[in-house]
Amino acid sequence: MSLTASSTPQGFSTFITNLGIRDTTEDFVFLRSDVPCVADGVFTQSLFAGPSVTISRQNLQDGQAQGIIIISKNANVANGAVGIADAQEIIQLVAQETGIAAENLAIASTGVIGRRYPIEKIRAGLVGMGQKLTAADFDLAARGIMTTDTVSKIAARQVGNAKLVGIAKGVGMIEPNMATMLAFFFTDAAISANTLRQIFRSTIDKTFNCLSIDTDTSTSDSAVILANGLAGEVPEAEFASALQEIAHDLVLKIARDGEGATKVIEVTVDSAANYAQAKRVAKAIVNSPLVKTAVYGADPNWGRVAMAIGKCEDERDINPDQVVIRFDEVQVYPNTFQAENLEKLKEIMSKEKVNIHVSLNIGTDVATVWGCDLTEGYVEINGKYST
Amino acid sequence: MSLTASSTPQGFSTFITNLGIRDTTEDFVFLRSDVPCVADGVFTQSLFAGPSVTISRQNLQDGQAQGIIIISKNANVANGAVGIADAQEIIQLVAQETGIAAENLAIASTGVIGRRYPIEKIRAGLVGMGQKLTAADFDLAARGIMTTDTVSKIAARQVGNAKLVGIAKGVGMIEPNMATMLAFFFTDAAISANTLRQIFRSTIDKTFNCLSIDTDTSTSDSAVILANGLAGEVPEAEFASALQEIAHDLVLKIARDGEGATKVIEVTVDSAANYAQAKRVAKAIVNSPLVKTAVYGADPNWGRVAMAIGKCEDERDINPDQVVIRFDEVQVYPNTFQAENLEKLKEIMSKEKVNIHVSLNIGTDVATVWGCDLTEGYVEINGKYST
Repeated sequence: MSLTASSTPQGFSTFITNLGIRDTTEDFVFLRSDVPCVADGVFTQSLFAGPSVTISRQNLQDGQAQGIIIISKNANVANGAVGIADAQEIIQLVAQETGIAAENLAIASTGVIGRRYPIEKIRAGLVGMGQKLTAADFDLAARGIMTTDTVSKIAARQVGNAKLVGIAKGVGMIEPNMATMLAFFFTDAAISANTLRQIFRSTIDKTFNCLSIDTDTSTSDSAVILANGLAGEVPEAEFASALQEIAHDLVLKIARDGEGATKVIEVTVDSAANYAQAKRVAKAIVNSPLVKTAVYGADPNWGRVAMAIGKCEDERDINPDQVVIRFDEVQVYPNTFQAENLEKLKEIMSKEKVNIHVSLNIGTDVATVWGCDLTEGYVEINGKYST
Repeated sequence: MSLTASSTPQGFSTFITNLGIRDTTEDFVFLRSDVPCVADGVFTQSLFAGPSVTISRQNLQDGQAQGIIIISKNANVANGAVGIADAQEIIQLVAQETGIAAENLAIASTGVIGRRYPIEKIRAGLVGMGQKLTAADFDLAARGIMTTDTVSKIAARQVGNAKLVGIAKGVGMIEPNMATMLAFFFTDAAISANTLRQIFRSTIDKTFNCLSIDTDTSTSDSAVILANGLAGEVPEAEFASALQEIAHDLVLKIARDGEGATKVIEVTVDSAANYAQAKRVAKAIVNSPLVKTAVYGADPNWGRVAMAIGKCEDERDINPDQVVIRFDEVQVYPNTFQAENLEKLKEIMSKEKVNIHVSLNIGTDVATVWGCDLTEGYVEINGKYST
């Protein structure tokens, strides 16, 4: 999709360019709000998180920000003290150029790890950037943060008089493939820091944190939201549901663009003892290489789903005799096999989005997670790269 | 390898045949000791464990057994009450035919799940089996328990006057692929139940429980040991180290025969705070799809190893600045890159066994785990099968 002027939140501007981080495509995206924003961010839990993550986590702690720097093609991870100094210098340069206080800037990076930024090129490229900001081009921003994504990912909604737009990247290969997931949301709605934080975290938890491409966790995953308030207040519930829709939309776009993926897998686990249990079981299924290859092969192989549930060995209250497994609406376990179902099942497994539904019949909680199939393409993309 | 008479423990006999479980290859293996044995078994923790696992777990609780039944090509899992009745009937039939008490028999199954045994064929095939037992043929037993393994797995050692032999199967595809791992050990050494239990569990924990092919856990994994005592006592430490060697040997054979595998990956994590931490980090590395594909592509991609360590987000005492990563003896992180190392690294990554070595520099504990690379072959084997 392309954003029209009418779907663009007011009061944002962008500076998007190539600084020669790695090649000649856009690799530097700066998004500024005309006025200070209420803001929040959630980040990777990786022990090897880089300076971009640690600085942004720190700067967003007060729930305020006015701009975001996004560098693609180099993650600035595992570079020791020099990596920290580089990140701080870039923040300072942008602060000087734009007049925004350094502590009101967030920064995100994605790309190769263990290699230093070409800092001289960055210094040169940022000179005068404050004068080069133009009316926000979110479409170009969505393209500028891509690494080896095959399509850019953007979604937008109207909420009352306010607009809400989200851009994301992932999961494309970069050397070494960190499968980094970045997501940024911008709105002109007015909302309190506490409310934003609560809505944002709950949304990310039920969307981006429910997405698994290959179980590997990036050192750089980041999601940030800025709300500049220029469009005034909006109904809280409406804002929450618009954010949820956008995040859900972006998550499906990422799953569809998963490395080598041909299909999206959606797993719903219901009637669980609690949400955490539902999510653990759903993730065990969506991450199982045997389930992922079965979906690739369009094989209604419920035995592999049962096996994946069985792996959740700490969930001792799950009783196999009470579990029900369905592909779409067709029950496959307990096995009430009917010949006419086999054709139906083949059809279900051949769809672009395969739905696996498990009822644990213990309690009332539900979780839905997303992933993609495992194909020769994944192996080829990740196995044929040479450092 | 083939076992010679001189490496075969005394007092065991076998009955190995085809009962038509699925095709015309051997699918029924019975191993009997002439005298009651000290015995132990460890089993899958899967919530979907079948009757073979639950019955054997029960029968081995007293540390005694005299025979093992192994059925391949059908796992008898997820078959409800009829599956339990079938397993009990087979135990009873073998007990009647051989004169061994039912509670002194263990049973293991591997193969398709959710499909009932062809129980009529089994009943017919077991008639008179007590008369058909012959001097133990462990080589044939190793072949008889295979599903789609491409080679049979057997290893043997002499301990004092006693012999110790182990056979194993895994990891080959079966519909649906349960990647079931079965391992059985037989010795004529005399050993107390407590000592055997202690040595056996510690050995399995450091060998079979350190092997991951694809993170999926079988509903039928079983390892059982029988010691009939006919060769008299042996030095305990010598017995333990022989068992460790055999188990290690079998684990490498299984990793090498992993679905689609072209290389074995051995990951050692040392100087950890404790063994559990070392093993968690090592498993995160050996199970990472990005590490597995990098090994496949012979790419010395240490960034992916760092990423996998970073995933162990609960291990807050791991400090990235203290971590050292090596491929064989060549340090790759912290990155002290030397041009002459790149050729050396390519060579290391091209070996049939790739060693990844991580020092956490926190404490003194060490763990080693094994796995295999992820290839198009894995996807093909598991994706192109149709239920």
